[in-house]
Amino acid sequence: MRSIHQDFKVHFTYNIHFTEGLFSLQNPLLVDTLKQSESPGPYKVLFVVDSGVADTHPQLLQDIAAYTTHYADAIRSLAEPVIITGGEECKNNTAYLNKLLQAVNNYGVCRHSYLIAIGGGALLDLAGFAAAIAHRGIRHIRIPTTVLSQNDSGVGVKNSINSFDKKNFLGTFAPPFAVLNDSHFLLTLDDRDWRAGISEAVKVALIKDEAFYQEIKNNAGRLAKRDMAAMQDLIFRCAEMHVEHIGGGDPFEMGSSRPLDFGHWAAHKLEQLTNYKVRHGEAVAIGIALDVTYSKLIGMLSEQECEDVLQVLTDLGFDLFIPELADGLNSADNRLSILKGLTEFREHLGGQLTIMLLSKIGKGVEVHQIEEELVTHAVQQLKQRQYAKSLSGIH
Amino acid sequence: MRSIHQDFKVHFTYNIHFTEGLFSLQNPLLVDTLKQSESPGPYKVLFVVDSGVADTHPQLLQDIAAYTTHYADAIRSLAEPVIITGGEECKNNTAYLNKLLQAVNNYGVCRHSYLIAIGGGALLDLAGFAAAIAHRGIRHIRIPTTVLSQNDSGVGVKNSINSFDKKNFLGTFAPPFAVLNDSHFLLTLDDRDWRAGISEAVKVALIKDEAFYQEIKNNAGRLAKRDMAAMQDLIFRCAEMHVEHIGGGDPFEMGSSRPLDFGHWAAHKLEQLTNYKVRHGEAVAIGIALDVTYSKLIGMLSEQECEDVLQVLTDLGFDLFIPELADGLNSADNRLSILKGLTEFREHLGGQLTIMLLSKIGKGVEVHQIEEELVTHAVQQLKQRQYAKSLSGIH
Repeated sequence: MRSIHQDFKVHFTYNIHFTEGLFSLQNPLLVDTLKQSESPGPYKVLFVVDSGVADTHPQLLQDIAAYTTHYADAIRSLAEPVIITGGEECKNNTAYLNKLLQAVNNYGVCRHSYLIAIGGGALLDLAGFAAAIAHRGIRHIRIPTTVLSQNDSGVGVKNSINSFDKKNFLGTFAPPFAVLNDSHFLLTLDDRDWRAGISEAVKVALIKDEAFYQEIKNNAGRLAKRDMAAMQDLIFRCAEMHVEHIGGGDPFEMGSSRPLDFGHWAAHKLEQLTNYKVRHGEAVAIGIALDVTYSKLIGMLSEQECEDVLQVLTDLGFDLFIPELADGLNSADNRLSILKGLTEFREHLGGQLTIMLLSKIGKGVEVHQIEEELVTHAVQQLKQRQYAKSLSGIH
Repeated sequence: MRSIHQDFKVHFTYNIHFTEGLFSLQNPLLVDTLKQSESPGPYKVLFVVDSGVADTHPQLLQDIAAYTTHYADAIRSLAEPVIITGGEECKNNTAYLNKLLQAVNNYGVCRHSYLIAIGGGALLDLAGFAAAIAHRGIRHIRIPTTVLSQNDSGVGVKNSINSFDKKNFLGTFAPPFAVLNDSHFLLTLDDRDWRAGISEAVKVALIKDEAFYQEIKNNAGRLAKRDMAAMQDLIFRCAEMHVEHIGGGDPFEMGSSRPLDFGHWAAHKLEQLTNYKVRHGEAVAIGIALDVTYSKLIGMLSEQECEDVLQVLTDLGFDLFIPELADGLNSADNRLSILKGLTEFREHLGGQLTIMLLSKIGKGVEVHQIEEELVTHAVQQLKQRQYAKSLSGIH
């Protein structure tokens, strides 16, 4: 039998820059980023803007127009920015994907043009997916505007939309051309969005870096009160850890493990159960609380460390129980609805069920089996804790 | 300004095996391929079958069922094979993509399961795209059933569907898990499909390997008369050259050049102008004839070598002119419709227009400009040649 063996490596590289006032005329970062291309300018760009960001930054579109005019020798804007409804809605409805692809077609965005997306994690997921599949991949620059997207989803190599009622059912691994984090966008976040992104930092600290966890713990009060310097430090270190993890491991997840998914199996299902009313980061905080409590119940984590984590999450302002977490307990089979998330999580990742738990703060451990009864137990403990907290709030 | 630098390489490897009678119970190739997975079996598989192949091989579905039953310890078939209309139709209508994605969802195909597609290039392009975006990529085994897909499209790293009336507008770069070429499938091809795939071998020989061109030239008569041994040799060498080109160059085409696209700028447009009635390989033969004639007209290629190529293509049984090639000549602007293909070709690839021409047999040369008038001239020469040939056919 004749055979041919194919073997190659593909080199990916990109920078994540942290700046303030990206579209200030004095800020050359975006232009310098475009100039990293091997071909001569002017570079064709199409901006995609999250409707939520456009609403809270009424002068953003004018700023972009002024910036591209000022740097006209380097930037050629192919059309007015495309405004897309932000939040999970844009990932749930394929009309938004089609709108983006249509824009790519109508305005002649080619493989060497840049699709520059400005928005939260959901919008960036959608825009990244459109950029990844149009012409088999056009260049994509991400400008994340939320804590979550600046420290986690926006700095990685994934994109996605939801399908068949399943989060991220469709997507690819496609590194961006660059990521530009502008902390000015954080100023206008509402408190929920400001807070939500912190849970991904807690997550990565818990499984990988005790010192970072202690820093978050020490800064919990400042972070809850929207101290920008504390937040900038948190975002930088969290992004750095994500970037290291991706580059140092299995960037396109061709093997079996995804150790940064701590607290995520329940989180994904909770988002769906609440019809995406709970933010991803809020769901992750609950997912962490659940998996930390479960780690304690199986005797893997000390009671003291478990309590420490729950208290830090509470100090940051997170609710650690919502009614949907207990969904299914009073149904016919008395089985938690979130447990269905375990099956979906395994199917999405493929292969054996792999769940990250905690053996101590700073050290994650993978397990391949989950005791449903103890998950139920953990849910009940979180419910009681929330009840006690609400009582103390009344007094 | 703080920055984080991401830098990593992703390693891709796969085999292309050549066999006969893939689903014969004595043939362990498919099972051995699945066992290359790092996880233990049985391996979950979902077969996708080109309706055209199912029609011409009425026992195929039974053979597959018998094979999976025989090797039940290694293969777990998740469902009956999904039958999808073959040919360009399956890339033009997103209903087929949705049908495949729905199957992935319904049958619980996960990232470690295998989507095994059996069919021609179009079906493989579609199935590869579905596999690439479902769960951000499920494993994909290709079983190409045509000359074209066995020696070219099926052995590479691309997938796609058509959109906005543009060929391959949507797609990704996603290496398959394996490619299994079974020459038995070639026995039932009609003469057009048998012949069509040969043009890709002529293409790659012309720009890279004079010896291979001479071999094709010497075998032209045998190939036209469906000599299987000659065809197997041609397919192997052509596949080998494509695999070398992809692995040795820029597999995901992140740079500017795609030198294996010789003869393709007009071919893609011709396919669209004929509403895909002309096969891709037939269009490529015409595209090669056009670019060879153009190379002669600009003084790059000798008249003798040009004629040699046109004669080999004719000996292989290709028509080198169809009315759509001259489309637009009698319109208001007297401009060839295929010339619009130049713009689309550039947009699809991005950056500067880059067209491969021929300086001598075995040596392609890239140019960045095309003289429209000389293209028109070349079209007229091909038209006259076809006319002379039809006259000589009458005598």
